Amino acid sequence: MSKGKIYVVGIGPGNIENMTIKAYNILKKVDVIVGYTTYVNLIKEEFSDKEFYISGMKKEIERCEKVLELAREGKTVALISSGDAGIYGMAGIMLEVAQKGDYEVEIIPGMTSVLAGVSLVGAPLMHDNAIISLSDLLTEWEIIKSRVEKAAQADFVISLYNPKSRGRTTQIIKTREIMLKYKSSKTPVAILRNIGREKEEYILTDLEEFLNYEIDMFTIIVIGNSNTYISNGKMITPRGYKL
Amino acid sequence: MSKGKIYVVGIGPGNIENMTIKAYNILKKVDVIVGYTTYVNLIKEEFSDKEFYISGMKKEIERCEKVLELAREGKTVALISSGDAGIYGMAGIMLEVAQKGDYEVEIIPGMTSVLAGVSLVGAPLMHDNAIISLSDLLTEWEIIKSRVEKAAQADFVISLYNPKSRGRTTQIIKTREIMLKYKSSKTPVAILRNIGREKEEYILTDLEEFLNYEIDMFTIIVIGNSNTYISNGKMITPRGYKL
Repeated sequence: MSKGKIYVVGIGPGNIENMTIKAYNILKKVDVIVGYTTYVNLIKEEFSDKEFYISGMKKEIERCEKVLELAREGKTVALISSGDAGIYGMAGIMLEVAQKGDYEVEIIPGMTSVLAGVSLVGAPLMHDNAIISLSDLLTEWEIIKSRVEKAAQADFVISLYNPKSRGRTTQIIKTREIMLKYKSSKTPVAILRNIGREKEEYILTDLEEFLNYEIDMFTIIVIGNSNTYISNGKMITPRGYKL
Repeated sequence: MSKGKIYVVGIGPGNIENMTIKAYNILKKVDVIVGYTTYVNLIKEEFSDKEFYISGMKKEIERCEKVLELAREGKTVALISSGDAGIYGMAGIMLEVAQKGDYEVEIIPGMTSVLAGVSLVGAPLMHDNAIISLSDLLTEWEIIKSRVEKAAQADFVISLYNPKSRGRTTQIIKTREIMLKYKSSKTPVAILRNIGREKEEYILTDLEEFLNYEIDMFTIIVIGNSNTYISNGKMITPRGYKL
């Protein structure tokens, strides 16, 4: 039997309507959808006629091996990632695992969660910006710290992924300290939580105050540059047009 | 007459299937679509029953004023941007102009072009990354240069928007020089052109060679970090999983 096709599909932040038309059509046509429990739960109802294979956190490689196994059985498989599969998602590891055999993998891009999140609060990412994950599970903390430092120094708008989890609470405190060396304590900050999902919420605050709010694994934090301002409840980073 | 609703819609890179379901549905329901000529042409056929208002480059503020005028007439208006409206797009300036009156603006996020582009070449953005526009039309060159320098120093994956235009050709040369101070000349580079549009193409090369290829206004350049590699025609930035 010939091998089935493998797709890595970015499903967007969570709600079906922020999925691309292409991602939606591909999920409709595949035989099996493979993914992390939380993400599968987001789309299960819409694609309820599919076969699902669910696995837990830190089982990323096992999940990719399962995809290969299903493809060997001749099945068309979609491995899903929330947001875009190519941003801290499953695209890279799936390509790496697939290159051990002769598997065809197509990556279907999706909307990263931070874009959906910032659309609720205004337009803070209008200028040069950096995305940094604070998780030191796979990256040395020294490297992460140096990225925070350089990005703050160069006045990037900065989006922080994985700012804090139950077992990892100090990185965000240290990150704020580093930023305060270069950014005003009044720099606008957006806290984006559960974007595109139940209990979606956002808070606009500043670098001084933002640690007083709840921050967890489903939170992205966006810190403005030196021109970012909040006006009428909207966080805006001007691009430089003369009004 | 009450004011019409204003949407700022990110249409994605250009092809209809990389539009989100929400963006598509909103464009179907509005009265008027307003946008830069090139972007309107990308979607005109699909939404051919709409009224269109087209304007040229550098007419961004005028375009926003036109949107307000249409809203005052009671029309529901979509101002479109390619990619995501919040990344170097129309979201910020529309919010700024709208705040002069009491207009309701909703931002509909879209897929940024770089995500669609990199999905064709592999998974180069799997780790911390920075987006920098090399256009010095609205930003001082000294600031841009310092962002390139810090981002290279901190080993970010770097995406360059607006790398070069007919009248602006030296910035990309200088940017490469700065990067070579910190990054190996063998660092993988993806050149992404006309993504989601006619004549879509990509080239995988390296920091040494990439200036030998055609680069224009519709090009995005992605430069890897120190771990990025090219294997079997795919550019991959590993996240750090042990295979």
